[in-house]
Amino acid sequence: MSFDTIRAIRWENDRLLLLDQRLLPHQQVDVICTDVAGVAEAIRSMVVRGAPAIGITAAYGLAIAGKHRFAQLGEDWQASIATDLDTLAKTRPTAVNLFWAIERMRGLIARLPSNTDPFAALLAEAQQIHREDIAANQRMGHLGAALLQAGSGVLTHCNTGSLATGGFGTALGVIRQAYADNKLARVFADETRPWLQGARLTAWELVQDTIPVTLIAEGAAAFLMKQQQVQWVIVGADRITANGDVANKIGTYSLAVLARQHGVKFMVVAPTSTVDLKLASGAKIPIETRSEDELLSLAGQRLAPQGVHAWNPVFDVTPAELIDAIVTEQAVVLSPTREKMLAMMEKPGS
Amino acid sequence: MSFDTIRAIRWENDRLLLLDQRLLPHQQVDVICTDVAGVAEAIRSMVVRGAPAIGITAAYGLAIAGKHRFAQLGEDWQASIATDLDTLAKTRPTAVNLFWAIERMRGLIARLPSNTDPFAALLAEAQQIHREDIAANQRMGHLGAALLQAGSGVLTHCNTGSLATGGFGTALGVIRQAYADNKLARVFADETRPWLQGARLTAWELVQDTIPVTLIAEGAAAFLMKQQQVQWVIVGADRITANGDVANKIGTYSLAVLARQHGVKFMVVAPTSTVDLKLASGAKIPIETRSEDELLSLAGQRLAPQGVHAWNPVFDVTPAELIDAIVTEQAVVLSPTREKMLAMMEKPGS
Repeated sequence: MSFDTIRAIRWENDRLLLLDQRLLPHQQVDVICTDVAGVAEAIRSMVVRGAPAIGITAAYGLAIAGKHRFAQLGEDWQASIATDLDTLAKTRPTAVNLFWAIERMRGLIARLPSNTDPFAALLAEAQQIHREDIAANQRMGHLGAALLQAGSGVLTHCNTGSLATGGFGTALGVIRQAYADNKLARVFADETRPWLQGARLTAWELVQDTIPVTLIAEGAAAFLMKQQQVQWVIVGADRITANGDVANKIGTYSLAVLARQHGVKFMVVAPTSTVDLKLASGAKIPIETRSEDELLSLAGQRLAPQGVHAWNPVFDVTPAELIDAIVTEQAVVLSPTREKMLAMMEKPGS
Repeated sequence: MSFDTIRAIRWENDRLLLLDQRLLPHQQVDVICTDVAGVAEAIRSMVVRGAPAIGITAAYGLAIAGKHRFAQLGEDWQASIATDLDTLAKTRPTAVNLFWAIERMRGLIARLPSNTDPFAALLAEAQQIHREDIAANQRMGHLGAALLQAGSGVLTHCNTGSLATGGFGTALGVIRQAYADNKLARVFADETRPWLQGARLTAWELVQDTIPVTLIAEGAAAFLMKQQQVQWVIVGADRITANGDVANKIGTYSLAVLARQHGVKFMVVAPTSTVDLKLASGAKIPIETRSEDELLSLAGQRLAPQGVHAWNPVFDVTPAELIDAIVTEQAVVLSPTREKMLAMMEKPGS
């Protein structure tokens, strides 16, 4: 597909390469991760970000860990790799795909023989997780794009594209597909303060893939909706609870409230690995607060005066009742409820 | 008052000094304006910004213009100063205080004798406009603060303080007064993209005046309201129409919609010089769109990739029905309507 050229996570020549998202759009630099500490730091410091992408990265990290643990400890590798599972699980708290990928790798680790180098099997599983993510995104792209009327304007938030996933993207995958299907009249992206994922990453991806996009400040979204420029807001998710509540990038909840007030539809696009049935509602989701410096400075340059503080929650929770559609690779769930979410998750293949 | 130490517009030694707001908070530099072209450029390039402040600045500019025109042309100064009135009127389109101040000066110009140097009279009028603005702000500070319950949290947007006015501020004047009255438990300020008036200017003012403030990204405002951290949103205005609709910094309308949905009260604080009875509703207000570069770059540093565009409307319109109180120096108008606004404007002294 001509609108899908970017892959930010690559396994090449027995090495994990991560496109450093902190340096985009100005520099394209790969960070090479050779051990678990390096993978964990890449996730923590946001070399790689986006819920599906950090899950995939952690899976590759565990393949690397398996190789090292077996080389060091032989038959005791399974006991000692528990430390690595733990290290990776502590990197970011909100996105559940990270824990999902770690649990899937943990399951395989338990099933593998202790007297054989586990690397090939663990790498194959990580690559399978990666391939499945891309396939899920392509499926969601079709399901989500089918919900849009031709000639629609859409607004997206943060970055949910190839950079945030194994490739193609979730919400941005829907936008890629809808653009390829000639359904989109206008694509707007929030710049997404403080980290500017919209201005730096989404804009970069769409420019690379020749999809026209117009950036706006978050504060302009309501005014844009009032002018009937957009018919859908399309976002990703870091965690979806059993009742359909959605944790996603700070500002998502604001867009959902504004969309409902303006008769604009609200779509959440995320693979089933983002769904956490163990949590009954969004009130239980741990919300990461990052350094106030992310808001007070930009690219090392101080914006605000010394002496002032900032509150920097990086996610918020959108209640299910504000969501018109949750799109997973399994199905489209309209007006999500606990019953509909459970039915979707129980479909064969999920 | 100990929480009111800043004056950004000063007439000193026969010169107009404007604190350059483009350089705050890192540098405190005065721009010296010696002719109308310099004053117009200072307004256009946002050395000075804020609806009341640009009105006052234009008034001083016309005093300078009167001096020059009389020195050049003697008795013909009144005809030739029309060019200067026009130059200043074309600097910014949205704030009506600019046109109000120009009209007030135009009225005086018409009444002055043609054979006498008009400078002293024009300067006295500009200084009177300046003094009246500060007095109006102090009056609004008391009226607005009286609406708050002790222990309240407030959220403000953009900069409406001493930097945006003759001194003390409109919305920030209410916050100054309420803080002095020990009524405020928490003060939050939106960073206010793209120009960062909140992060750069409001934070600087409040740090100078020892009022604690916490910055947030615009996208976090809804999440803040959801957590019941704020009971009032308090903002200024660039133009208020006869029915109580309010044009103000982009993002204000968003806050008003979000406040109503969360049971948070919404207060607009502006002098009567901001009220434009000639416009029936906000739909008629011209909305300034500034360069997309204000969004795509920051302090000369490019944020977004080449090839991407931005939409940068710098004001939006909040309909009267989302406003709980408009506070002017004349009165508090609760749940504004055309009838209430007209009654307020007709009060003696307005």
